This record gives sequence, structure tokens and C-alpha cells, in this order.
Amino acid sequence: MPDAPPPEFAFIARHFAPLAGPHALGLRDDAAVLPPRPGRALVIAADAMVEHVHFLPDDPPDDLGRKLLRTNLSDLAAMGAAPTGYLMTLAIPPGRDDAFFAAFAAGLADDQARFGLSLLGGDTVSTAGPLAMSLTILGEVEPGAEIRRAGARAGDGLWVSGTIGRAGLGLRARRGDIEDPDGSLVHAYRLPQPRLGLARAGIVRAAIDVSDGLLQDAGHLAAASGLGLEIEPALVPLAEGHDRLGPDERWWCLSCGDDYELLAAVAPDDAAALCDPAFDPDRVGWTRIGRFTEGDGIALRGPGADSVPERRGFSHISDGAPRPGAPAA
Amino acid sequence: MPDAPPPEFAFIARHFAPLAGPHALGLRDDAAVLPPRPGRALVIAADAMVEHVHFLPDDPPDDLGRKLLRTNLSDLAAMGAAPTGYLMTLAIPPGRDDAFFAAFAAGLADDQARFGLSLLGGDTVSTAGPLAMSLTILGEVEPGAEIRRAGARAGDGLWVSGTIGRAGLGLRARRGDIEDPDGSLVHAYRLPQPRLGLARAGIVRAAIDVSDGLLQDAGHLAAASGLGLEIEPALVPLAEGHDRLGPDERWWCLSCGDDYELLAAVAPDDAAALCDPAFDPDRVGWTRIGRFTEGDGIALRGPGADSVPERRGFSHISDGAPRPGAPAA
Repeated sequence: MPDAPPPEFAFIARHFAPLAGPHALGLRDDAAVLPPRPGRALVIAADAMVEHVHFLPDDPPDDLGRKLLRTNLSDLAAMGAAPTGYLMTLAIPPGRDDAFFAAFAAGLADDQARFGLSLLGGDTVSTAGPLAMSLTILGEVEPGAEIRRAGARAGDGLWVSGTIGRAGLGLRARRGDIEDPDGSLVHAYRLPQPRLGLARAGIVRAAIDVSDGLLQDAGHLAAASGLGLEIEPALVPLAEGHDRLGPDERWWCLSCGDDYELLAAVAPDDAAALCDPAFDPDRVGWTRIGRFTEGDGIALRGPGADSVPERRGFSHISDGAPRPGAPAA
Repeated sequence: MPDAPPPEFAFIARHFAPLAGPHALGLRDDAAVLPPRPGRALVIAADAMVEHVHFLPDDPPDDLGRKLLRTNLSDLAAMGAAPTGYLMTLAIPPGRDDAFFAAFAAGLADDQARFGLSLLGGDTVSTAGPLAMSLTILGEVEPGAEIRRAGARAGDGLWVSGTIGRAGLGLRARRGDIEDPDGSLVHAYRLPQPRLGLARAGIVRAAIDVSDGLLQDAGHLAAASGLGLEIEPALVPLAEGHDRLGPDERWWCLSCGDDYELLAAVAPDDAAALCDPAFDPDRVGWTRIGRFTEGDGIALRGPGADSVPERRGFSHISDGAPRPGAPAA
């Protein structure tokens, strides 16, 4: 009897084996084996993305794999860790053809080279739909140098990298709500830029990435540190294109998600070091938008404070029972 | 402005934070941080389960979490690794209430205590359905002591732990095809027993767990080792209840999946050590069912050899385009 491998294995060999690093054992064993890394702590996180919730059915497949990888890389960025590898599981509905997965894997290959990591393992299974993807990211950091959410102190500045609202504006452009003549907003929605290397140990006392909305994620940082926050909406560097919203509606950018910029707590004396252009080759930039205070909760100050909508961000599960189809942002 | 956490975080705090180990940082950071483990290699794998494909909508929720964990533990068992932790992502459809997740988490808590590991992180997202779960398992092993698929040598015996066909018979009982008066078959389908500790370095040269069917998985072991296999179907320890199938139909057990027993390559001189009851407190037992040979492919020998169905196991993806709804076994 010949020992022909079933098609699942051919599918994995065709698309995913080329992404595998040396410790993945060719994706042909039951697990990957990584040798000890003396003097390095393992940093590990997992995020999932589901069609219609986190991406749209006609988003380009090469962007989907990259977005899944980058949202996870953003978690490492927030911890101050460097990426080393990832595992991925895919629940695949009918109708996704081989070309889809060839493009999906090509996007991953591109980003693996860009960010310096490789595939360690995973699983592909069938589903009646929708397409559901889960990724576990591995990184490493010098023990004790990881950046937690809980390290902020009263008087620290709250800083944000890059600009805020690009992904949310991109989703609205994608839906035809606003103009996007050069496609840059939709591009930002589809392909976030994880800010690896920007949160530097010794300068940043606490950090989080902006996945669920700036105000909500800033609130997590303050709560974990046992502090309050004063934020000045007028200081927030809103993304180019925010003026295509109405004058007051622009504050919506403070609660839309998917930007994957970093929020960081930095002592006043370290502000100059944070902003040293030598550490920012991509010119992402940092902006101070508020400060940590004794107490709790977020207080908004100055122009715009009264116009920020109550809704602070996203929750994918409603109270008690889960709800489907949370907004894709 | 109060800083009330959105319901997603309450959901995680209620059900999953109690499962978190010390390195999970309370599930309140962007990632878990594990200190270096000098002299231990990290073993890591990921498996997914989807409703209607890997389990049925009315399977008890406490069994679902445990099955997801155990299928992954089985991968560690095959590598000879000891579990340390896991990350989990859930894509949750509407209609699963809080009681469902309370039971789901209770099952996980029970198995965490049983197998000695804890939750490190994860993600919960919404889906229009079906319920999709992904789990990444972490384990450790002395560097170089991991058991690979590729280590078998010609002349080694092929051994299997426990009995084969229980889960497949359980699925058929579940569907009403066969009797299951005491429910033990359905129980075996819902709750596999990962054979941790049974594959011992120094005795087992190569191993794989039986997830896709004994013949298919044995074929992987032979192919990875660059060898052929002779298997005697009449030697395979068929599960109690196999005689509820027709006399020839019993050989179907050799290609049904989900048993999560181990297949191991063992040198003839090590057979006595493998079967030493001191190493088998649960009396799982090992049975020699064939031997590795020069060449390739699987040759069936002796009684039953002509009656084994051609179909060797399961593939969850058809050639080229994926297919939905692969059999739940």
C-alpha cells in the first residue's frame, strides 16, 4: 500500500513549510523544540481575528496574514520585547482557493523577513465559516527589562507614538463614509505598523498598545498603575484625514481602535531621551498628551474635552452573554 | 469620568483570570513573561477545534475545554515533554451564555490541576459562528531528550499504548449507530487521555500521537524515519465495544481518529523496559503491533489484512481548496 499523504499535509507543505524556522522541525513533528536561551525571558501572547469582525471578506489575503502577525507583534512592542517566532491556527471555510492561501503565505513571508521571526507550528482545520485565525507570538527580553502596564508613577507624562485615528478613518473610508483619494487610510486599516523598538527599557516605565481605542487603553494603563490620568484631547496627534470628519466628530478618533501605536508613561526628566531622533529612524515621533495623577479614572482637559464621545473603545463581548459582530475596528 | 472596564474584561476576569499562573501577570498585560529555564528546551505546539467538526453543539462545556487542552497535551506526550502552560483564543458565537463559560472554565481548572500547568494568556473575540477554539501548549524537556518522529530504525518494533478505536466508536454511539449502555464510549470520544510520561527518553526512539487514525499516523512515523512498516491488524488492541461492529467492519478502528494514544518505535532489546509496570501506574499498557522495515509505505500482514478499509484516516483540507465539515473524529 502506498503511503500517500492526505491533502491537508500537502496544503501545509505547499504554503506554510517554507515559512518554518529551524526549530519548527519542518512542521513535521508534533511540536517545535526551542533550545534554552540563557539570560533571556520568554514573552508570549495570542490574538485572534475573525472575518467580518476584524477584517472584511475582500481585504487582500496578503494583508490578512500580515495584519494578524502585526497585531501580535504590537503586543511584544508594548512589552519592550524582540520577536522570535510564532504559531498559527486557521479555521478555513469553503470557498477559499489555493491562490488565496498562496497570497496569504506570501504576505507572512514578507513580514517574517521584515521583523526577523519565523513560523514554529500550528494547525489548519475546517469550519462552516467565517474564516477564523489565531496567532501565538513569541519574543524575548532581558529578564526584568519587560515593560509592564503597572509601572507608571504620578507625575509621569502620557506619551503616544505616531498619530491616532488612521485605522478608524480607514475603516470609514472602506465603508464609503469619507474620501480616501490615495488609499492611505484604507492601507493603514489593513496594515498596522507595530512599534517594535520604540518602547525602550530604562525610559518607558509602563506601556500598552492602542488596539481598542486610545482612551480605553490609556485607562488600562492608569488602572494597572493604580493612578488617574489627565488627558488633553487637543494634544492628541490626530491622523492626516481627520479633518474629513466634522469639527466635533474628530474626537471619535480617540476611541476608535486598530491603530497599534504605543502609549507610554515617561518621567518628565526622560522626555528628551524618549524623543531622541537617533532612536526613531522611521520618524514615528512621540507626543505628550497628558499626565498620570493620584486617584483614578480619566479626566479630559482643555479644548475638545466636552466633545469627546462617551464611548471609549471596543469590547468584543457584551455583559454576560457574548455578542456577535462587534465593529471591525 | 469613571473608568468602568468594558464587559469583555469582566468576562475574562470572571472566567479565565482564576486559571492564570504567576507568569500570566493576571492576564492584565499585553503578554506573559516567563523567566529563563536553564537546561530546559521549550516544546510548543498549537491545535484548534471547531464546533460541528471536532465536537458537537451539545457536548458538555466542561468537557470541551478539557478536550482542547488534552489534544494539545497529547502532542507534548508524543515529544516526551512535560507541560508548563498554555494560551487560548476563543471565537464565540451568539447564544453561548455565561453558564456555558463557567462550566468550560471549571473543566479547564480541573485539568490544570491534574496535569500541572496554568493559563498564560489568550484572546476572546466574537464570531457569527461556529464556536472556534485554539490552544497553544508549552512544555519542556531536557535539551536533546525530545522524542522526534524521525528516530525509528529498521527492526524496531511498532508499539501502541492503550486500546484503539474508543473515540471513533464513541462518535458512532453518539450518532446512534451502536449501543453504549454505560456511556463509556461517548465519554472516551469527549475526553481523551493524553499519555504524558509514557514515552520515555532512552527507550522510545520515535513517537507520534494517534489523532488522525492509527494507520495514517503510523505512516507519518515511518515516512519521517525513511522506513517502511509491517503492521498486523490482528495484533492491534481494539477497544472494548469494537465487537458491536460487524466482524470485518472492526478494522475501521484502525483508521478512525481522536484516540490520542501513542505510537512508539522501540528496539527489540528495550521491549521489556517499555512494558515495565513500574512505569505504567494507570495500567495503560503497550502492545507491539508491527515492525519497521527498510523501504517505504505500510504493508498489512496476517488476519484482517485484506479487510482493512482503504481510507486510512482524516484530512481536514481537500486538495487545492479547503473543504468544510470534515468528519468529527
